[in-house]
Amino acid sequence: MKLDYLEIYDTTLRDGAQSEGISFSVDDKIKIAKKLDDFGVDFIEGGWPGSNPKDMEFFEQAAEIEWKNARIAAFGSTRRVKSQVFEDTNIRLLLAAKTPVVTIFGKSWNLHVTEGLRTTLEKNLELIHDSIDYLKQHDKMVIYDAEHYFDGYKANPEYALQTLQTAVEAGAERIVLCDTNGGTLVHELLEIIEASLALDLGVPFGIHAHNDSDVAVANTVAAVNRGLNHVQGTINGYGERCGNANLCSVIANVALKCDTKVKEKVNLSSLTNLSRYVSELANLAHREEAPYVGNSAFAHKGGIHVSAIRRNRQTYEHIDPSLIGNHQRVLVSDQSGQSNILQKAEEMGIDLSGNGHDVKNIVHHLKEMEHLGYQFEGADGSLQVLFMKATGQYKPFFELLSARVLIDKREDDSIESEAVLKIRVNNIVEHTAAEGHGPVDALDKALRKALEPFYPTMKSLHLVDYKVRVLNSEKATAAQVRVFIESSDDVSVWGTVGVSENIIQASWLALVDSISYKLIKDNKDVHEQ
Amino acid sequence: MKLDYLEIYDTTLRDGAQSEGISFSVDDKIKIAKKLDDFGVDFIEGGWPGSNPKDMEFFEQAAEIEWKNARIAAFGSTRRVKSQVFEDTNIRLLLAAKTPVVTIFGKSWNLHVTEGLRTTLEKNLELIHDSIDYLKQHDKMVIYDAEHYFDGYKANPEYALQTLQTAVEAGAERIVLCDTNGGTLVHELLEIIEASLALDLGVPFGIHAHNDSDVAVANTVAAVNRGLNHVQGTINGYGERCGNANLCSVIANVALKCDTKVKEKVNLSSLTNLSRYVSELANLAHREEAPYVGNSAFAHKGGIHVSAIRRNRQTYEHIDPSLIGNHQRVLVSDQSGQSNILQKAEEMGIDLSGNGHDVKNIVHHLKEMEHLGYQFEGADGSLQVLFMKATGQYKPFFELLSARVLIDKREDDSIESEAVLKIRVNNIVEHTAAEGHGPVDALDKALRKALEPFYPTMKSLHLVDYKVRVLNSEKATAAQVRVFIESSDDVSVWGTVGVSENIIQASWLALVDSISYKLIKDNKDVHEQ
Repeated sequence: MKLDYLEIYDTTLRDGAQSEGISFSVDDKIKIAKKLDDFGVDFIEGGWPGSNPKDMEFFEQAAEIEWKNARIAAFGSTRRVKSQVFEDTNIRLLLAAKTPVVTIFGKSWNLHVTEGLRTTLEKNLELIHDSIDYLKQHDKMVIYDAEHYFDGYKANPEYALQTLQTAVEAGAERIVLCDTNGGTLVHELLEIIEASLALDLGVPFGIHAHNDSDVAVANTVAAVNRGLNHVQGTINGYGERCGNANLCSVIANVALKCDTKVKEKVNLSSLTNLSRYVSELANLAHREEAPYVGNSAFAHKGGIHVSAIRRNRQTYEHIDPSLIGNHQRVLVSDQSGQSNILQKAEEMGIDLSGNGHDVKNIVHHLKEMEHLGYQFEGADGSLQVLFMKATGQYKPFFELLSARVLIDKREDDSIESEAVLKIRVNNIVEHTAAEGHGPVDALDKALRKALEPFYPTMKSLHLVDYKVRVLNSEKATAAQVRVFIESSDDVSVWGTVGVSENIIQASWLALVDSISYKLIKDNKDVHEQ
Repeated sequence: MKLDYLEIYDTTLRDGAQSEGISFSVDDKIKIAKKLDDFGVDFIEGGWPGSNPKDMEFFEQAAEIEWKNARIAAFGSTRRVKSQVFEDTNIRLLLAAKTPVVTIFGKSWNLHVTEGLRTTLEKNLELIHDSIDYLKQHDKMVIYDAEHYFDGYKANPEYALQTLQTAVEAGAERIVLCDTNGGTLVHELLEIIEASLALDLGVPFGIHAHNDSDVAVANTVAAVNRGLNHVQGTINGYGERCGNANLCSVIANVALKCDTKVKEKVNLSSLTNLSRYVSELANLAHREEAPYVGNSAFAHKGGIHVSAIRRNRQTYEHIDPSLIGNHQRVLVSDQSGQSNILQKAEEMGIDLSGNGHDVKNIVHHLKEMEHLGYQFEGADGSLQVLFMKATGQYKPFFELLSARVLIDKREDDSIESEAVLKIRVNNIVEHTAAEGHGPVDALDKALRKALEPFYPTMKSLHLVDYKVRVLNSEKATAAQVRVFIESSDDVSVWGTVGVSENIIQASWLALVDSISYKLIKDNKDVHEQ
């Protein structure tokens, strides 16, 4: 039996979270799940209840949310050899997660049965049967992940097939063939799939591939082309060791290049955005060279390529990047740089060539700042302030006379951060101080205290996000630091950026840009010195 | 005709150098070429003479070197439509490069002939023929890269095949099918290869794949399995847009999992080293999750996995990592059970159950810290200190009495960071101060100044990496911050971690752990209070 569409099972929050360097908070997980739901995936595997406290907390919160497209799945193993199914801790926690779907993994590889579980092949079939049967009695949709299926099949094909049969007899509604160690190449995978489909179990099959041989996406797409339309993977291919099949690539390949239908609810044109969002929450740099969704995926260097794509995009682009929400970039071309910047300024209502200014100089200045580590993609606030400065349209809202930040740490580990600020507004000198949770918080508080009497609308300004990236981290504590701040005033949201060797200075630059942007917005006419 | 071994053609220095962010110096290129030669590749494509001055300089230097295994190749296009072959600048520069091998690319796709070259299909065959024929007259070995072959075949199979036939008739010794736009999936690729081999041209075929569909390695391996044993690719998959086929993965897959022979001269066990070396010279971070050669490729996190690999490595490793010069690693994380932690402690030579301590309590404590935002995966230094503290084996090397950090910012935007520190070492109170590039740098300097007289080995300690992650960034400047520090003393490298609402405090915690780790290492017996 074959599904007549691509069924997307996302395990970013469980298998993806096994990536070295990823550690999602419960809050991160809820945010990502909502984004996946918006995008249109069918299943969201939230975690393994009981493996750590965060996972259960996620399921508690998830149960309260009305999901539009996705069903939430809890993941866990078959019952233990020594416990009865109804008293098995793992199985009980799976039920406690209160998800509509439970994904159970069991052993298909005789080696794992005897060396891992240290039980008999016979007994392992019982574990599979009991666990699925019990979950079905509790009205769960059960997906069966056949762990190490391909290695198992190579070692003992009869037994591997028997485990699948057992799972189906117990009521599993999906049978997912897992290449857990990621060691299988495409041709082997297809041979084993062929032999397994011959069983004709009457249940849709799926594929779960790992990337240890650098072919996880190819394996997944090959399986889909053979009718295994339930695909498990992660956004950006996150996952332990070399990662899982990258759903971004899989979905794009299937949607744009294969016969299998991708449901209409799948919002393909937000794929790039989804990918970036998840890397942001994982706090991993978005891979520039990532297929389809990377910043370089449709970037063309000068020369032959550029003149050819100007005549016909198809000459050097395998798909139209807008289909997946990405865009073409032409590199090392001042001409195109200029037109981008002109377009951006126009959007902001700024006439860059006004006041007799030269757009070329502004572009040049911007490139210099980018060379220093500035990045304006998420920092429209800073960009607008910069445009206004460059064209003489900016008048500062205050003048900094001095700022001092003091961090005081005592023997008992208590710590205090204090900022002392002297600024001039309207020719009045304000000398003020504030404490905060850290040096930047203290600076922010002191600055507001000084400015609010003059600019009452600042009360509505608040910071919603704060990010730090160390640029040349190998210079260690003397490295260049980039700070991104996202601010909002309940009407709009804007980003600002600051770069310095000193994290406090970088934060200060981003803070001041944020306040300037806000005040420009509110005081289009009344600029005060 | 089929080669009876894998013929490795490396284009890291040409196609790889098209990567966004890569800019090799001539010196870099020579170094990489030597490394590739040592490793045992068959061909090294050094560049496109004439495309920039660096490339010609490389060829001049390369001509003076005695290569052990590799032949150097120069890359260029067929002659221009409007010039005779002997007066064509491109062809003349190819000869001037004085390489034994020349790789010529020509158009196979009718679209590119008419839209790119703006000439007739007939004329394009002449360009291919003339260029190869002329180079053969000059005793070059000629490799023909059929650009856009797969797209060309889809558009006009007869014409695409005709271009190959022309190249062979003119004397090309290899015909390389290129998926220039990287849009072809494995099954399509194999169909087109099948049809093309049917021509039976009597010359070995090769494959050149790009990764725009995330299947470049799979395509290359599939082609090899079909007898296209000449493979073109780059180390680490560098290349324009989404990169080229990653030779590290291709070579490992073919050597360890396919029937095609890999020559004995290929030094497989230095593959990881080669990969790291090239990323070092490219000045790009080595991809942790890279298949085979990445630092995470054989890293195990989940508790179940770890207990299984302790019994039998094969259970969760698709190959023995030492075959390609990599090694197994066990990570500690919130997924991990007791067995990870036991093994980790064992590696560090710490007996966790010694002194009557309970491993369960230690695991519990670790999980609580992870819940707070700590992450020990890259922080072996902090982990060791924590283990020693938990088992009563740790005696502090100094006592903090007070620390004060002052950041002073003036109107002229100059900024100064100063740290004042009072600590007690060996019952002596040290009161000292230092300036730095930022608050953390100042703290680091002050701490060293105070400690070095007591612990002279600290002089060899230096910080090599500094990373900051804001954990709950939506709390903006009052968010929890995690700081990672990597330190080294020229003998070993270790990571430490600190978490706090206050970035200075988080940095302090990581700094102190780093110093403690260093001093524990150096003073196994002589603990001072």
